[in-house]
Amino acid sequence: MKTRIYNARILTMEEKKGIFEGEVWIDGDTVTYVGKAEENVEQSRNSWDQQIDAQKNLIMPGFKDAHTHSAMTFLRSHADDMKLDEWLNTRVFPAEAKLTPDDVYWLTKLAVMEYLTSGITSIFDMYMKRPAGAQAVKDCGFRNVFCESINNFGGTLEEVEEDYHTYNTDPDRLITYQLGFHAEYTTSREMMEGITRLAEKYHAPVYVHCSETKKEVEDCRARTGMSPVAYMDSLGLFQFGGGLFHGVHMDDSDFDIIKKRGLYVVTNPASNLKLASGIAPIKRYLDMGIPVAIGTDGAASNNCLDMFREMFLVTGLQKVVCDDPEAVPAMDVLKMAVVTGAHAMGLSDCDTLQAGKKADLIMIDLNQPNMQPLQNIEKNIVYSGSKQNVKMTMVGGNVLYRDGNFYLDSTPEEIYRKSNESARRILG
Amino acid sequence: MKTRIYNARILTMEEKKGIFEGEVWIDGDTVTYVGKAEENVEQSRNSWDQQIDAQKNLIMPGFKDAHTHSAMTFLRSHADDMKLDEWLNTRVFPAEAKLTPDDVYWLTKLAVMEYLTSGITSIFDMYMKRPAGAQAVKDCGFRNVFCESINNFGGTLEEVEEDYHTYNTDPDRLITYQLGFHAEYTTSREMMEGITRLAEKYHAPVYVHCSETKKEVEDCRARTGMSPVAYMDSLGLFQFGGGLFHGVHMDDSDFDIIKKRGLYVVTNPASNLKLASGIAPIKRYLDMGIPVAIGTDGAASNNCLDMFREMFLVTGLQKVVCDDPEAVPAMDVLKMAVVTGAHAMGLSDCDTLQAGKKADLIMIDLNQPNMQPLQNIEKNIVYSGSKQNVKMTMVGGNVLYRDGNFYLDSTPEEIYRKSNESARRILG
Repeated sequence: MKTRIYNARILTMEEKKGIFEGEVWIDGDTVTYVGKAEENVEQSRNSWDQQIDAQKNLIMPGFKDAHTHSAMTFLRSHADDMKLDEWLNTRVFPAEAKLTPDDVYWLTKLAVMEYLTSGITSIFDMYMKRPAGAQAVKDCGFRNVFCESINNFGGTLEEVEEDYHTYNTDPDRLITYQLGFHAEYTTSREMMEGITRLAEKYHAPVYVHCSETKKEVEDCRARTGMSPVAYMDSLGLFQFGGGLFHGVHMDDSDFDIIKKRGLYVVTNPASNLKLASGIAPIKRYLDMGIPVAIGTDGAASNNCLDMFREMFLVTGLQKVVCDDPEAVPAMDVLKMAVVTGAHAMGLSDCDTLQAGKKADLIMIDLNQPNMQPLQNIEKNIVYSGSKQNVKMTMVGGNVLYRDGNFYLDSTPEEIYRKSNESARRILG
Repeated sequence: MKTRIYNARILTMEEKKGIFEGEVWIDGDTVTYVGKAEENVEQSRNSWDQQIDAQKNLIMPGFKDAHTHSAMTFLRSHADDMKLDEWLNTRVFPAEAKLTPDDVYWLTKLAVMEYLTSGITSIFDMYMKRPAGAQAVKDCGFRNVFCESINNFGGTLEEVEEDYHTYNTDPDRLITYQLGFHAEYTTSREMMEGITRLAEKYHAPVYVHCSETKKEVEDCRARTGMSPVAYMDSLGLFQFGGGLFHGVHMDDSDFDIIKKRGLYVVTNPASNLKLASGIAPIKRYLDMGIPVAIGTDGAASNNCLDMFREMFLVTGLQKVVCDDPEAVPAMDVLKMAVVTGAHAMGLSDCDTLQAGKKADLIMIDLNQPNMQPLQNIEKNIVYSGSKQNVKMTMVGGNVLYRDGNFYLDSTPEEIYRKSNESARRILG
């Protein structure tokens, strides 16, 4: 299908390109042209399958949710106001034990709907019952990078290696897969050493929850004499890079390891507030040149999958914690949420809006009061944007959400009904 | 006009009433019935001017924005990433000096549009050129409590007394007025003593910006030997109560004064983050029984007028600062945003949804992915709600916003055009 988006303001997210007026052309799942309206386009009117008038709204690459647990939507507003370890052990794990593949299928679809409303076009999803989650994402036409979540309570190294191949051979690249494991505190040394061997075999990066709470760091130190970062690095896990989810509580020497290994940090500020985990040292990471991406975390902890909330928190929290209102300005936040997010999860062709890149893009509604007056659109998005401004979300060249309507293979009513059934059956 | 809202879930915000299914009836600007669907309503179908099918969505009282500066919308995304004092003196005050009444009229209307999209039905607005702002609010059919903002740079005590009468005699009570002044650091002792005399004359509460930044507190202490709270209290300003906007940096003894005088604290967490002012001790206020309301502050600092963002911040920030995930649970936040907000600004008839109260209410769209599954609606609103969930906003019995459409005397296009013209003329 050939699509032309015209009459648009365009933010490609390429360095120093700014915002300009023009068009975006798409063939199949790929962008073929981004630039000024060309004169000959009028003559070729009949060659388009679809023409979208952007009405001077902003077209930009979609947001990348670089850490989430999609199917945890069933736990939204179920167990709030608890500490992470108690919450995991008394509420989350027992409920998750009751999940069927069918539950995961529908609960993932519910999450995809929410991502779309927030302009998120791809996710780095760490969850179990992967075939069901993969089917849900594919049926929606959404883009998902799976992050391996093996730990002492589930998964074998053989299954990990099999999944590495299974999910990295999707012909349309809607599904890919990265090596990882749940966390140092839930995974045996033998299992981590096995992941190291796989990383070495495939020259692959490794991703993991790390240093989310003070307790996690203290416990690791008591057990190993090292911080989680230092201990995992000593096992050779990060020889080919990777990333740390959360990264809230870091020693001075941890920063050097992260920098040396070229690791990404994926920050989840709303989840860290709500679970009282802490505030990650984002400004220090950025000052050291450590790339930071943004995740929502799952709906069980956050409780919503909203990149606008996370973007404001990333900058707002650093400003107050560093006592510096200049800390982490808006354009840096936008880059994290779009470009660095894509790179963190290994999507080299979803970072900017250029010919040859995937057509994963969103239309930001500028005709809303929170975007007016139109003085600085990038700042408006980060400092005053909300889900209400997402007028369209396109993944792989297909419009999946527009003007409040979803274009999926299931209706919202069916997805809500199935999700409520799952939640009721599991949580009573 | 007689309106019937039926097929609704209803949250009245009365203590321990919970959510039930039923109807809301409205006559003019007043609620006449809230309860189960009555059998005889079918017979009286013809007596309704308007019937609204809520489709099982939630009807609740609107949010109260208990501290804002409406017409500052023209400064949105103009001067970000600066400290409060530099920002006020080099950017805000010089720009505000160029505002005409016509600017204030249109910029206030822009703010009203944004309040409506966030389910805000009344505001406590501290701004200058009050006749223009009042006209804008009246023309919109919105509800506004003016807070006096006199200071060394504008206003006389005679004008204050005149405005006290002018704006407290509005027959439909869409506009009311409370005594106040800008801040201790911008107002002479003589002027504050004059406000005290007016408070004594009218037995009126007094509202003021207070202890927003560390510098403000230190400067006041250097000048007077007292904290701003103690100094202003020593001038007799709070004999009839009132409220403090921001209230971020407090001494132990300040809490006692606030408690003793029955003052409200109005917290503005997004603004405090963005200007790196600090995080207010909300949990301590609440533990002491000090009533806390929530404001957005103006769009120049925040940069948006969004109660959902503020509500999540109120609870999220306390959880992390107090290292206590149980701090300030969702229902307490909702009460601050709705009930305490109304009381803080002196609106005794806009706090809950009951017969005899003003028909200032909103419809929350539960058929959105961020509200599903429907396990705990109150928590959903605070922890995962967004502007996208505001399906309808009604003020004084009139629908001003519904399904993305505004029902005002001006079109959005006109308001945007005028606002952009003002911003361009003033800011260049």
